[in-house]
Amino acid sequence: MSIKLNPTGQLMPQVGFGLWKVPQETAADTVYNAIKAGYRLFDGAQDYGNEKEAGEGVRRAIADGLVKREELFITSKLWNTFHSKEHVIKLTKKSLDDWGLDYFDLWLIHFPIAQKYVDPAERYPPNLLYNVDAGTMEFEDVPIAETWAEFEKTVELGYAKNIGVSNFAGALIIDLLRYAKIQPSVLQIEHHPYLTQPQLIALAQQRGIAVTAYSSFGPQSFLELNHPGALKTGLLLESELIKKIAATHGKTSAQVLLRWATQRGLAVIPKSNNVTRLHENLTHADYDLTEQEIAEISALNVNLRFNDPADWPGKIYIFA
Amino acid sequence: MSIKLNPTGQLMPQVGFGLWKVPQETAADTVYNAIKAGYRLFDGAQDYGNEKEAGEGVRRAIADGLVKREELFITSKLWNTFHSKEHVIKLTKKSLDDWGLDYFDLWLIHFPIAQKYVDPAERYPPNLLYNVDAGTMEFEDVPIAETWAEFEKTVELGYAKNIGVSNFAGALIIDLLRYAKIQPSVLQIEHHPYLTQPQLIALAQQRGIAVTAYSSFGPQSFLELNHPGALKTGLLLESELIKKIAATHGKTSAQVLLRWATQRGLAVIPKSNNVTRLHENLTHADYDLTEQEIAEISALNVNLRFNDPADWPGKIYIFA
Repeated sequence: MSIKLNPTGQLMPQVGFGLWKVPQETAADTVYNAIKAGYRLFDGAQDYGNEKEAGEGVRRAIADGLVKREELFITSKLWNTFHSKEHVIKLTKKSLDDWGLDYFDLWLIHFPIAQKYVDPAERYPPNLLYNVDAGTMEFEDVPIAETWAEFEKTVELGYAKNIGVSNFAGALIIDLLRYAKIQPSVLQIEHHPYLTQPQLIALAQQRGIAVTAYSSFGPQSFLELNHPGALKTGLLLESELIKKIAATHGKTSAQVLLRWATQRGLAVIPKSNNVTRLHENLTHADYDLTEQEIAEISALNVNLRFNDPADWPGKIYIFA
Repeated sequence: MSIKLNPTGQLMPQVGFGLWKVPQETAADTVYNAIKAGYRLFDGAQDYGNEKEAGEGVRRAIADGLVKREELFITSKLWNTFHSKEHVIKLTKKSLDDWGLDYFDLWLIHFPIAQKYVDPAERYPPNLLYNVDAGTMEFEDVPIAETWAEFEKTVELGYAKNIGVSNFAGALIIDLLRYAKIQPSVLQIEHHPYLTQPQLIALAQQRGIAVTAYSSFGPQSFLELNHPGALKTGLLLESELIKKIAATHGKTSAQVLLRWATQRGLAVIPKSNNVTRLHENLTHADYDLTEQEIAEISALNVNLRFNDPADWPGKIYIFA
């Protein structure tokens, strides 16, 4: 089950493993075991702070003959502090070195936010805050066009097979497409039944951009961060509607939430530390929801976003 | 009652007269009478198709000694077909010639949408459609950065005192601010109790950009266009809450809707063909709503947008 990417024609697995909040201590084993369980796509980021360890898991799996490099699809994301033309290529190289890879299958701009440069020799990955003691963020006036031109160079240099964007909204994507020499292959967005974003998905489909959904289980990862919206809604996995539909099909709630996305053509990148759930997530797509069920789940939408830089100290309204 | 604009320090009247859907036949008299009634700001656009006639009203009022040019604040907007560097200056000149003015007080990019050029000698203003018979739209890959650089030239050339944008969303504004040599003075947006956009307004305030609200009465202007959302919600002017608050203050519903915006620092540009309402709108701000009333009105928000290019034949998802 894969999605054909534009403009390369390369195939991206529709189910992958997301590395956000995977601890450094366990990341190598987690990745190794996920590969063993059949995962081929890993979705990392500089900001997750576990690229070296994830890479170690990948290299061990390759050394043990579980998989070949070309069978894997490795995604990572450039952090906000490295948007300028002085830094993109250097930091692309650094991430590749951390992973121990020659190329990324997909290299994303993590956010359309340009923060002030932090030297990796001083602090890496950079905290969200520029001045950690003062709790402040600082920004740099680097237009997305400058960052994207550097991303196109990473393709020319062979560092990335595909390039794309994450957390970009409609008007910004449309503007990017006007000057892009290489169009983004993938748009990665927060997407779950509380935040369905039908227009944004329609835009991506209209322009031939594949969509990867993150936070498919909605509030789950944000409850432990005490996100007010997450505390209010409670778990999607415990939603009566999701549980009812899951029971109908003899599936888990997680499998329903994932299928609701993949059946509509989206890619998903759930995370699990549990062997059973790891397997359930990967193989969730062996059944179909009815159109009615999909519509019922979509009707849970309340435009509730959990990952919003407007909530960061710098109050960055990229989703306004 | 006026708003100080950045970076010029020029004052913009907080209540103006919007020229959308003012018929050519009556536009000159409408503008003349509005000036007589005390209006000083007129909000036009190439697309409204009445710039010559509005300009005639302005010139007549000046000739009759009702007002001086420097007491007026004239806004117009560049249409989507003229975004490229070949066209912006020429079409700015054309609009000024149509109005019979030497300069605009405010010159806006109407939409962050670049449509294919239509020669004004062939059709002006250009229809939304490129091929009217086929019902199709066509686009041009002109980045906003190119259009904005030309807008900055209109300031250097003295054609515009202030420049700004309309219908721009958060991430695109943030990106524009990264490369702008002259920052936008004004953001004009659809804004009414069914579409409150608190994040977008917070962004504008954070960056010192004045906000002008259009469609302050919500569905009203869209009912006659048979907009499905407008047909469903019915008139805001007939809302029980708005009527109740209006009765409390001895004001009209329109005056409540306008005050809800102006009391929070926004500019408004209502339109009326009725002499009484013309006066009521202009003088609506001689009272204050309570914080509680403002909150109650804001709570009507349902993110319902009436003016959305996603509904145009080309399905342009600038608000996704």
